[in-house]
Amino acid sequence: MGKEKRDLVIGIDLGGTKIYAAVIDRKGSILGSERKKTKAELGFPVTVTRMAECARAAAATAGLPWEAIRAIGVGSPGPLDLKKGLIIETPNLAWKEAPLRKELKKLLKKPVYVDNDCNVGLLGEYTFGAARGARDVVGFFVGTGIGGGVIIGGRLVHGFNENAGELGHIILDPHGPACGCGNQGCLEAFSSRLAIEREIRRAIAAGTPSAVLDDAGASAAPIRSRRLLEAYLANDAAVVPAINRSAEYLGYATAAMLNIFNPEVVVIGGGVVEALGDLYVNRTREIAVKNCFAIASRNVRITAASLKDDSGVLGAAVLAWSHLH
Amino acid sequence: MGKEKRDLVIGIDLGGTKIYAAVIDRKGSILGSERKKTKAELGFPVTVTRMAECARAAAATAGLPWEAIRAIGVGSPGPLDLKKGLIIETPNLAWKEAPLRKELKKLLKKPVYVDNDCNVGLLGEYTFGAARGARDVVGFFVGTGIGGGVIIGGRLVHGFNENAGELGHIILDPHGPACGCGNQGCLEAFSSRLAIEREIRRAIAAGTPSAVLDDAGASAAPIRSRRLLEAYLANDAAVVPAINRSAEYLGYATAAMLNIFNPEVVVIGGGVVEALGDLYVNRTREIAVKNCFAIASRNVRITAASLKDDSGVLGAAVLAWSHLH
Repeated sequence: MGKEKRDLVIGIDLGGTKIYAAVIDRKGSILGSERKKTKAELGFPVTVTRMAECARAAAATAGLPWEAIRAIGVGSPGPLDLKKGLIIETPNLAWKEAPLRKELKKLLKKPVYVDNDCNVGLLGEYTFGAARGARDVVGFFVGTGIGGGVIIGGRLVHGFNENAGELGHIILDPHGPACGCGNQGCLEAFSSRLAIEREIRRAIAAGTPSAVLDDAGASAAPIRSRRLLEAYLANDAAVVPAINRSAEYLGYATAAMLNIFNPEVVVIGGGVVEALGDLYVNRTREIAVKNCFAIASRNVRITAASLKDDSGVLGAAVLAWSHLH
Repeated sequence: MGKEKRDLVIGIDLGGTKIYAAVIDRKGSILGSERKKTKAELGFPVTVTRMAECARAAAATAGLPWEAIRAIGVGSPGPLDLKKGLIIETPNLAWKEAPLRKELKKLLKKPVYVDNDCNVGLLGEYTFGAARGARDVVGFFVGTGIGGGVIIGGRLVHGFNENAGELGHIILDPHGPACGCGNQGCLEAFSSRLAIEREIRRAIAAGTPSAVLDDAGASAAPIRSRRLLEAYLANDAAVVPAINRSAEYLGYATAAMLNIFNPEVVVIGGGVVEALGDLYVNRTREIAVKNCFAIASRNVRITAASLKDDSGVLGAAVLAWSHLH
């Protein structure tokens, strides 16, 4: 098969700390890849230059001339202006109105397509991962915050202002804990990594014995997912309730999504969930199924994401292909 | 214009207490209509015969021969099996696996198309009512319970088991009041007409002065929408907080829908809302906008339904047309 027919594209996953670019073929194989630090604090022009370098290095690693690449897809933190290809604003990157598509196109001389990171991650899982074969899919990504995405009839739902899929801010209790968004009781305020850590620190500060923090929760450093898994398996008295609470509230949000969309698959990704796997997802599923109509969960799969770190670059490739044909 | 070109269809709104059938033209004009009691307690064959009589009477009222009618659309309580045209089960009608499409087709000798009442009501508002001109629309119908529907890109979202749109059972507080569905803290348990009445009776039983019930909440009869409006306008101490609470929780649910779908229009229908109009909807809108991302509500209309009792028959006509072309 000729290189053109293989429809080679580059998917770029732009994160708050790192850029990950990969050359991807139609089967979802990664032919070459490269990672660099984002260095957002040096300004948008520095980061976009690093993204371009990363893309060219990925092609070189794959042993491909630049001409073999047909297009570039990018998953970026949002909110985005999809029509203009701008990053409107994002707390992680501290830029405003950054012309991502235009500048990257200028540097790479290829068509560039941009969507938000959670939508792109969901596209990856939909096409190559845990939601493969389904037409109606909901995705939750549990990280520092919680993002999400929705695919209906094989198409991402973008909405009127292109801002659909903010599943982390479904309100699960109007009188619940404060959320970073300014409201109270959002899913993110119950189930995100930050919420889990806050619960652990609170329990330790209240005297609960735990192996996770050395000095009673005084350290502000994030607790690694692997550490959380170990502590969970060791039945740590501070960690187990915090993780379970996260999984349970995600279950209530999943129940809402089942009643609203009646999707075929609900994919749950993000570091904590991926590290804990079914220890986490089984609990979410149990609460979800109990809290929606029986018909809304019948034969519905509620499952951990399967592509891990690659969901972003693979989904960005799918985004690029969707515009090529 | 010939009758065939006018694409005349009959929309039927099947309710728990009444059947309403109307002949409708492409402009959404009702050319003739008929209403009958449902008499569900006499069994499905009796009701389906009454539906057929109602449809034929509507055509006669319009002065049209039966041949002028191209198809029949029906909005029915659910859940439904759309592929088979069955009413699977519904508390209001007490039938199981009722073959609505097949039997009605046999009686009327026309193509028959069925969808659930809230989806059909939303189709009506989308095509001829408050959501006219929008592509992405969410609808809430506040009645004895709360139903809903979602249109994305001009198409109703049905989901994997054809049971999407159960917006009344979004959980707004996992520890909230018991809901008829068996769970706790669903929207319906806060905002439905039953929830409003329960709050009013509770307040009266606790000694709150109110003009609504004669004997301190002992009467089990439903409180009419018109009576609620009068009491609200008179600043009734039991009615005002109950209505406001309903509107506020609907606001939280609306915020979730804005963050999830970012629709262009949110339509709110049902007797209580229609009677109170902006007194209710303004409060819902205020809470919704405050509790979602700014971009998710920007230029989004949150508005009362405009077709009142006709949304069902008009939407059923739209359903029929959608299958004719």
